[in-house]
Amino acid sequence: MKTIIIFGAGRSANSLIQYLEKNAFVYDWEIKVVDKNADLFAHKTSERMTGVTLDIFDAEQRGKLVKDADLVISMLPARFHHLVVEDCLKYEKSLFTASYESKKAHEYANEVKDKGLLFLNEMGLDPGLDHMSAMKIINEIRGKGHKLTGFESFTGGLVAPESDNNPWGYKFSWNPRNVVVAGQDGPARFIQRGKYKYIPYNRLFRRTEKIEIDGYGRFEGYANRDSLKYIDRYGLEGIETIYRGTLRRPGFCKAWNIFVQLGATDDSYIMEDTENMTHADFINSFLYYNELNTVRLKLYHYMHLDQDSDILEKLEWLGIFDDTPVGLTNATPAQILQHILMKKWKLEPNDKDMIAMWHRFDYLDAESGEPEIATASLVVEGDDSEYTAMAKTVGLPLAIAAKLYLTGQLDMRGVLIPTIPEIYEPILNELEENGIEFKEKILTEK
Amino acid sequence: MKTIIIFGAGRSANSLIQYLEKNAFVYDWEIKVVDKNADLFAHKTSERMTGVTLDIFDAEQRGKLVKDADLVISMLPARFHHLVVEDCLKYEKSLFTASYESKKAHEYANEVKDKGLLFLNEMGLDPGLDHMSAMKIINEIRGKGHKLTGFESFTGGLVAPESDNNPWGYKFSWNPRNVVVAGQDGPARFIQRGKYKYIPYNRLFRRTEKIEIDGYGRFEGYANRDSLKYIDRYGLEGIETIYRGTLRRPGFCKAWNIFVQLGATDDSYIMEDTENMTHADFINSFLYYNELNTVRLKLYHYMHLDQDSDILEKLEWLGIFDDTPVGLTNATPAQILQHILMKKWKLEPNDKDMIAMWHRFDYLDAESGEPEIATASLVVEGDDSEYTAMAKTVGLPLAIAAKLYLTGQLDMRGVLIPTIPEIYEPILNELEENGIEFKEKILTEK
Repeated sequence: MKTIIIFGAGRSANSLIQYLEKNAFVYDWEIKVVDKNADLFAHKTSERMTGVTLDIFDAEQRGKLVKDADLVISMLPARFHHLVVEDCLKYEKSLFTASYESKKAHEYANEVKDKGLLFLNEMGLDPGLDHMSAMKIINEIRGKGHKLTGFESFTGGLVAPESDNNPWGYKFSWNPRNVVVAGQDGPARFIQRGKYKYIPYNRLFRRTEKIEIDGYGRFEGYANRDSLKYIDRYGLEGIETIYRGTLRRPGFCKAWNIFVQLGATDDSYIMEDTENMTHADFINSFLYYNELNTVRLKLYHYMHLDQDSDILEKLEWLGIFDDTPVGLTNATPAQILQHILMKKWKLEPNDKDMIAMWHRFDYLDAESGEPEIATASLVVEGDDSEYTAMAKTVGLPLAIAAKLYLTGQLDMRGVLIPTIPEIYEPILNELEENGIEFKEKILTEK
Repeated sequence: MKTIIIFGAGRSANSLIQYLEKNAFVYDWEIKVVDKNADLFAHKTSERMTGVTLDIFDAEQRGKLVKDADLVISMLPARFHHLVVEDCLKYEKSLFTASYESKKAHEYANEVKDKGLLFLNEMGLDPGLDHMSAMKIINEIRGKGHKLTGFESFTGGLVAPESDNNPWGYKFSWNPRNVVVAGQDGPARFIQRGKYKYIPYNRLFRRTEKIEIDGYGRFEGYANRDSLKYIDRYGLEGIETIYRGTLRRPGFCKAWNIFVQLGATDDSYIMEDTENMTHADFINSFLYYNELNTVRLKLYHYMHLDQDSDILEKLEWLGIFDDTPVGLTNATPAQILQHILMKKWKLEPNDKDMIAMWHRFDYLDAESGEPEIATASLVVEGDDSEYTAMAKTVGLPLAIAAKLYLTGQLDMRGVLIPTIPEIYEPILNELEENGIEFKEKILTEK
């Protein structure tokens, strides 16, 4: 009997746990789900799955768990991974995560390999499924002798059309803080037709691209951080266009930009007197002083918003001009904004979320030399607010990888991400069987 | 014979050194000017003044100099002050600077007092002369029983009207880097009529105030960092308006804002391929890709600049659309922008710079209860590019303080800034004798 330890039992671990628990009976596994909060795993335990309450900083208990494992999976917030990494190196256990590979990974990469272990990171949705699906098509295009000239990729965590009942076309399906502060870690960097391009935060939400996904209508995408690092990761040296972005429903970005321009997404300083602040006071603190006019009109004037602008409806709907107390003490602008948004953008128990991913590949045909465009798109809807599309697409690739590893079908060793066929092929195949399937199109086909 | 050590002999130390050297004959002082670069003091040495070449990290030599001093003055960049602070504590010497008091000052404040020393910081222009001139009037207003309700203060380092021959009304008279990155250390914070207000960087240069100074015409002011900290420093608890800002000539800020919006003032990342970049390429890297149009037109369109906008003339004059190579390797946007600006905003040898300072005090009259407004303004022009207005206004307050201290006329001890009458009164008096004199007005006077 093999033992799997899963650190972290939050919402995004639901589908991962469900898949592994089902397979535990087939392959004779024991699963231990570890979290600080017993409520998160209490209703999931079974004959094959036990829950363990643990403070992640309890090194002794943590070490004991890792020591007895055959595979460790960490769904913890990325800042805690290093604790598990240390244990896995010490007790010589393989470790899978859905998080970005740590910048320090190169320091222990050789040790992992020498010890015959596999540390597999970026096995979720984004990062994860984006790598797998993109590399599959990139390798197919190149396998046919075509010359890849451009790669664009967009992903978004959204709300399913049937649960989309607000003017933003948006609800929170993952960490709200990350949504509020998105784009603040340096300029977006990418290449367009051979030119390096940089977009600062204050312009990010006004430089969107329009994207259409069959059956789901239009989306807009804003540039996501540093696309340049994917040149190396995907082997795209010399590519003329590379651009990665985040998907929203049309109109979201222009309205969100109002908060960016105001400074309401700033998470770097504590505002004064927030305990006595209403929603309207919060907005007013970013506007010029004028006692004769309403906060509403001052904002519209400051941001050049016409009376018939779609943005007005979105802002009004959020209740940002209300006299409702904010109800936070010593808070940053971003924390207050998040707090206001969470009242409105909450995924209700019966709501279904949706993830959408879209890739575009530009290439020159091997024979004709003509430019061609291929696209691949994926839309997944959640079942409800527990088994969300986010939980499925983050958890299933990781869960399938765990099964492959424990059944001897993943025999590479070292610190890896799923950009190699030996990893992504079997995973994409099994995801297809589970209804997570990309639709590929060649746009230029006659 | 008393010995004064001056660390740092850069441009802003010129007037300080000149004043002290002149007084050295009167009061029997010996002055040692210490710098890494002997060229900076070579032509200034005299019977009373010697130059010492020193790497500031040479602790042994530095210690020796401090040990023999009666007073230490540091004109070093603020990041090096801590080295001199340590020596002054060790050898029990008083230390005067024109820089902001360090956040760590409270850690050694008691030690300074117990050892009978005076560490006097913020003794330059801004910070320095701003404190002295504002506190003098604040204390006068309160001394008459009036109730102070508002305080605004603006300072700018500019170019004298006779040397003002460019459309920006601006040349560099101090550290160009600080001008390029100004405003990036958190939002501007202030109070307007009892309301806390915050302006993020991307709006800073569009929220300007208009200011008129008799004989010098109009200026505009943008908010400067955290005005709230002056409430405590100036004893202004409960004040309804407090606002500090930086002065420019009208139109500067709106044009500068174009660079802010582009992301061209960002100093946080290295751009790709800067060694092959022209001025136009630099601007283009912040614009969308479009092969049919010029960089010029793309910028005008992106920033909604009309053909007849004053901003166009300013941008064109800087040569930002030229095919001139930038000529920098591995540079940040801010470094490249500074490099381009330095070619154009250089103070020529015969150019005169100018500093302008303007305060406004709102108060309720002690007898009538009516609102009154008083203003105080100072304009100083430089003699040439060596004895600049900046050097005079930064150096003379510090130099006068040094004289007062060495002649036994400053007998307070501890870590202080010049907000107390015992310090500012004699200094303001002597500055007046040197032609540095504020003009006070009561705007509401019948």
